Amino acid sequence: MNKRRRVIRRAISIVMLAVALGFGAAQPAISQRAQTGRADPLPSWNDGAAKRGIIDFVTRVTREGGPDFAPVADRIATLDNDGTLWVEKPLPVEVYFLFARVREMAAKDPSLKDRQPFKAALEGDAAYFHEGGKKAVLELFVGTETGIDQERFAAEARQFLEKWRNPKLDRPFTELAYRPMIELLAYLRQKGFKTWISSGGTIDFIRVFAPQIYGIPIDQDIGTELKLESRMSADRLVVWRLPEIEAINDKEGKPVGIDRHIGKRPIFVAGNVGNYGDIAMMQYSKGRRGPSFQLLINHDDAAREFAYGEKDNASLNAAKKYGFSVVNIKNDWKTVFGAPQAAAAK
Amino acid sequence: MNKRRRVIRRAISIVMLAVALGFGAAQPAISQRAQTGRADPLPSWNDGAAKRGIIDFVTRVTREGGPDFAPVADRIATLDNDGTLWVEKPLPVEVYFLFARVREMAAKDPSLKDRQPFKAALEGDAAYFHEGGKKAVLELFVGTETGIDQERFAAEARQFLEKWRNPKLDRPFTELAYRPMIELLAYLRQKGFKTWISSGGTIDFIRVFAPQIYGIPIDQDIGTELKLESRMSADRLVVWRLPEIEAINDKEGKPVGIDRHIGKRPIFVAGNVGNYGDIAMMQYSKGRRGPSFQLLINHDDAAREFAYGEKDNASLNAAKKYGFSVVNIKNDWKTVFGAPQAAAAK
Repeated sequence: MNKRRRVIRRAISIVMLAVALGFGAAQPAISQRAQTGRADPLPSWNDGAAKRGIIDFVTRVTREGGPDFAPVADRIATLDNDGTLWVEKPLPVEVYFLFARVREMAAKDPSLKDRQPFKAALEGDAAYFHEGGKKAVLELFVGTETGIDQERFAAEARQFLEKWRNPKLDRPFTELAYRPMIELLAYLRQKGFKTWISSGGTIDFIRVFAPQIYGIPIDQDIGTELKLESRMSADRLVVWRLPEIEAINDKEGKPVGIDRHIGKRPIFVAGNVGNYGDIAMMQYSKGRRGPSFQLLINHDDAAREFAYGEKDNASLNAAKKYGFSVVNIKNDWKTVFGAPQAAAAK
Repeated sequence: MNKRRRVIRRAISIVMLAVALGFGAAQPAISQRAQTGRADPLPSWNDGAAKRGIIDFVTRVTREGGPDFAPVADRIATLDNDGTLWVEKPLPVEVYFLFARVREMAAKDPSLKDRQPFKAALEGDAAYFHEGGKKAVLELFVGTETGIDQERFAAEARQFLEKWRNPKLDRPFTELAYRPMIELLAYLRQKGFKTWISSGGTIDFIRVFAPQIYGIPIDQDIGTELKLESRMSADRLVVWRLPEIEAINDKEGKPVGIDRHIGKRPIFVAGNVGNYGDIAMMQYSKGRRGPSFQLLINHDDAAREFAYGEKDNASLNAAKKYGFSVVNIKNDWKTVFGAPQAAAAK
């Protein structure tokens, strides 16, 4: 009996995840229930201010004829990736990719072992990168992920992701996404929102996994960008990665990236506490004429994920000052990860 | 009798245009006919190699199970704007906008009358800009369209377009689009292609008119880009236009812009003879693994539009070398402009 219940529960989990990932389109019964409000669109969220705030907002801006109604063209949602849609600790996934590339390079050129930031990368010295911040990571990025064309880069990134597992959680990249956020993406899309990623990570890396794990197409990714140029390679025009950063999509860079790729202030944004990265994007959304919603994720759950913040609490203070909605993972999320973790948590 | 026939013909024109502009969704009878191939999807095109080439290609890549089938995610079409989707003579529309802005500025600062490129702009000296090429235009652009935020820019551009008419054709901007190309956009979209603009013009200017006249949403525009920055203005975060060009979306810049905004080689591209602007984009598309189609418009019809080319025929030579499909306006287009012009032509 117990086994049978577990099987049923597991089957339900899989269906829920499939719906969350956007495979629900072929199941009118379920999506209809969600539309009429009979089903809970955010089952992994505990009932609280954050969940109620999201649902209230989405209901308001999609109610035709209502005072806050926003046409579909204005339903732009931009979400940060590392720490907002998936785990960014011990280090962001992309940094492990850079580490792996340095190891490959060092096998051919041993002198890298004595030069920073390669040395730190080879020794897995996370402290060096925490201290050096984005600048150290970007140096490593320019030192490893350039001098090839875009298609080769994508192939290398794909190859890395297939084998890599998060060293603390021992999970592959496909299981690092926060289940409540996957539900949120699906809910927003079901209500006519166009979901975009706006990440400090590099646009080309995000494109390799975003369609698979978030259902977000590659032309809806915004990220840090390298300088690129057209080049002929064996009679074929390729786009070449130059060793220089063109645009850093972090902090004040995020509204610029959104303007460049979307051309409109987002009505809904989500970001996280930890690196001050999303405050400007939230202010930009808040400056929209008309309704808008900003969601700030606070990583306070060391047991189920990682707990971290900012020394000066800048993001949380901004939330208070401007009226962003704060998600405290410990209390607001019933489940943190996808189906396998959900089963384990029970 | 003659009058009645004219009325009927006119009514048919209006319906065709509505369908072409994408209003056909609500008319299942018509769109179904187009789908089953019973109606002509490109009625303003004469039967010839160009039209047959387009229809053959679209049919091939959308035939499920066929050897050239491309999934919807790969059906990326990028089209140049000036000279491809609408008239670019005597000068591109955006240049007239810059001229108008200089006149406004000169009213406040008369010293501009003695400084190039403002002097040439004030005197309507088209030769100066033809000679100086893109560089002269960009100088003018940086000198007039910066130092404001993005929202103010859009408002100014909108205001300009409302009043302006093409000086040679005496038509508003809404009537400068080539009707055969509007039909082509609608046909591609009906077949699951995502249509993008990839223009040498500036992205922010294109966004002001592309949804209205092409049915292309603003996040599917690629163009020349200014440097931008986030700035606080009266307690509101705005995106500010700095007096510096960030990326020129012309020639070799086009594959880079496409990679940045789309992340995939286009399966279908269209460009035009006149400024060498689209050769690289066509080569980039041609380099796609799998089928692809490149359409090059040759402006050889001085009677209905403008006739112009390149001294060394570089675009036409590239077409021959790489196998791009050439459209000769004189023979390939039954009608050049929308309904009013179509009526006049008969």
